[in-house]
Amino acid sequence: MRLSRYFLPVLRETPAEAQIASHRLMLRAGMIKQQQAGIYSWLPLGFRVLKNIERIVHEEQQRAGHIPLLMPTLQPAELWRESGRYDAYGPEMLRIRDRQDRDMLFGPTNEEMITDIFRSHVSSYKDLPLTLYHIQWKFRDEMRPRFGVMRGREFLMKDGYNFDVTKEDALHAYNRHMVSYLRTYERMGLTAIPMRADSGPIGGDDTHEFLVLAETGESEVFYDDRVTNRELGKRDIDYDDRAQVAAVCEEFTQLYARTDETHDSGIWEAEVPEEHRKVGRGIEVGQIFYFGTKYSEPMGATVQTADGATVPVHMGSHGIGVSRLVGAIIEASHDDRGIIWPEGVTPFHCGIVNLRQGDAETDAACEALYRDLQGKGLDPLYDDRDARAGEKFATMDLIGLPWRITVGPRGLKEGKVELTSRRTGDSEELTPAQAVERVAGIYAGR
Amino acid sequence: MRLSRYFLPVLRETPAEAQIASHRLMLRAGMIKQQQAGIYSWLPLGFRVLKNIERIVHEEQQRAGHIPLLMPTLQPAELWRESGRYDAYGPEMLRIRDRQDRDMLFGPTNEEMITDIFRSHVSSYKDLPLTLYHIQWKFRDEMRPRFGVMRGREFLMKDGYNFDVTKEDALHAYNRHMVSYLRTYERMGLTAIPMRADSGPIGGDDTHEFLVLAETGESEVFYDDRVTNRELGKRDIDYDDRAQVAAVCEEFTQLYARTDETHDSGIWEAEVPEEHRKVGRGIEVGQIFYFGTKYSEPMGATVQTADGATVPVHMGSHGIGVSRLVGAIIEASHDDRGIIWPEGVTPFHCGIVNLRQGDAETDAACEALYRDLQGKGLDPLYDDRDARAGEKFATMDLIGLPWRITVGPRGLKEGKVELTSRRTGDSEELTPAQAVERVAGIYAGR
Repeated sequence: MRLSRYFLPVLRETPAEAQIASHRLMLRAGMIKQQQAGIYSWLPLGFRVLKNIERIVHEEQQRAGHIPLLMPTLQPAELWRESGRYDAYGPEMLRIRDRQDRDMLFGPTNEEMITDIFRSHVSSYKDLPLTLYHIQWKFRDEMRPRFGVMRGREFLMKDGYNFDVTKEDALHAYNRHMVSYLRTYERMGLTAIPMRADSGPIGGDDTHEFLVLAETGESEVFYDDRVTNRELGKRDIDYDDRAQVAAVCEEFTQLYARTDETHDSGIWEAEVPEEHRKVGRGIEVGQIFYFGTKYSEPMGATVQTADGATVPVHMGSHGIGVSRLVGAIIEASHDDRGIIWPEGVTPFHCGIVNLRQGDAETDAACEALYRDLQGKGLDPLYDDRDARAGEKFATMDLIGLPWRITVGPRGLKEGKVELTSRRTGDSEELTPAQAVERVAGIYAGR
Repeated sequence: MRLSRYFLPVLRETPAEAQIASHRLMLRAGMIKQQQAGIYSWLPLGFRVLKNIERIVHEEQQRAGHIPLLMPTLQPAELWRESGRYDAYGPEMLRIRDRQDRDMLFGPTNEEMITDIFRSHVSSYKDLPLTLYHIQWKFRDEMRPRFGVMRGREFLMKDGYNFDVTKEDALHAYNRHMVSYLRTYERMGLTAIPMRADSGPIGGDDTHEFLVLAETGESEVFYDDRVTNRELGKRDIDYDDRAQVAAVCEEFTQLYARTDETHDSGIWEAEVPEEHRKVGRGIEVGQIFYFGTKYSEPMGATVQTADGATVPVHMGSHGIGVSRLVGAIIEASHDDRGIIWPEGVTPFHCGIVNLRQGDAETDAACEALYRDLQGKGLDPLYDDRDARAGEKFATMDLIGLPWRITVGPRGLKEGKVELTSRRTGDSEELTPAQAVERVAGIYAGR
């Protein structure tokens, strides 16, 4: 993309209404525009990051064998009356009446609807196990929306639902989700720690939240600091291998890590060596639940087993806050000058800064770089504006592309351009061809 | 995907409520489930087609230089009061009140909001031309939703908006959209004819609708039948070349083609040779508008020109019915046995039918084909169920994958499998390696 033809409305001033770094930086970098309290437009740069996160979530869900579909944003009230949640849900549920006076709602979550889909089409144990998920816009009418996309009202979420014949099968689904979530967050450059949590209005016995450590997090967290060293890395996971999947879960959850809701100071003091006890704050970026037959029983989602019995299915639900992750990643990765995107989610793979726009040789070198990077399947952002170098650098730093190639007449005289890491600030002089190879190598296999 | 692990709830019976082929077939093929009147869940197979259509729309919009963003589903009423459309829009607009008694609405279209984004961030002619678009769920509270996704209430639509300094520039944007739409539809296997139409509630002088000829279309259309032979094909389009783009538009619109709204029997009889006059029905799958300063003037979307004057920008809007296209494609491409997907949008590239599940050699051959097709970057659907051949064929025919590879012990004895075209029914005996090459060749470059 050529910046001269893009829509990147960066702001010079820090917006007064933004209290936390991610909100400030998303506004300043022209990623979002608030349309009303807690409801945002995703401007082109923000939309790119959102789509990257969505893509990673899709890929990791499907790698784990989960099947995508798409449920509508609006739901009929009847389904929620069946489960008993229509009256229980409270004023966060946006209730709507259509022109024929039917009660509807903007879905805050989809346990009822997915159970309805299941019971309409599945009746035999032979069709299980089954995990269905979707990524869709949801709405919760927060009284005080704040922190930008971190606590918005209209938000994009992945929610998935497993259907299993037995509790044991459902717990494998639970574990499978935990491992796939760990990989999902790692691909986004995040360390998200699974913590034993409280089930809230979803219900159920087993639940873990995934928290990204950040000072601006809404939850107080208590953890053994060795838990932050766990890494899934590139190890091969067979999601059908129950023992392997369970062992990974054990590895990531054996050390103490809990939110204030479930913190137990007795266990904390008895089991965590004092030098490893850490209290901090975390941003919740996902949660998994096993809730058994809580929805399948009242809603009649049953299957026939091999011996002819009719049993309600065991279910769980599993959510990732897709739009919230954009904010969480920024909270975890920024500095005074702006955002620092992890390679996995960056809106463009690298920037090209032309130090002397209009100079024939410099322009030609930039054009060649732009074309060659695209030829490698990369998506560069070329700052071809007629602007001062300082302004171009400030924009690149603000929007946080992890790599920048700087092209100027002085370097070109020696056949060189400069490749700079946004994270470290380190620069290297390279030939244009070397720079292209280097950047292509960084993104190879992603 | 292995069918034994997929969620493909095909129906044996034809649902009584479905009046047209696409609605019937989408229900029977397990593509959608109605959740309430005019609101559907997209089951896994339907979701795949929807995503393919969305991807093609994105690719062709970006090829034309248009920039994606994403506006929210819910909009504040104030914006619509500014343009004067809040009261004018009628009961099809779903009006919502939030917990703080603010008036909101589920967006039926986005002229107001995009104008608000524009005026907040753009003030100079130097930032133009600019075309922004998004693909988002919209809602129109139809009194009588019917025909499945063809006339639903919650529907997925691409809507784009151009901003230009002069009328001349805006008309180039209009033409650019026409050409990019022609390519979009062709990639989906559709012949969509641009017809001079009526502007309706969007307003404006110039507008064309794109119609797919089909007996079940909602519009009566009058056209010179030579218009159906026009094809954009693979010709290279430079979307910045005004003359070239205008010439393509001229080529596709010079012959008479109008909906009943704008039909003029005087011109019809004077200009269309009698043997070429055709009256038929069409499904609207898109529409483009030029409406000048209709929104920019009341909403104050202005730019400063080179000579310092402040002028309202010239705008147009441009829509493609993404979810509706799924139905339109089926209306245009099906037979008694089911859907026939064009290669551009098919949910899976080909099917593999195992005629003797459980036979070691047949299973092994199917597994090898499955792996080899995936190795070519293809996405096959392998029917590995323990079911009769007749049932497997019926399912494949119903869901309409354009190519099927049939594997049985008899063929394998001679080292052969059978490759069958869903469209023609023609079969060929090939070695498995040849079949893989053939299918890969069909999809090469898509």
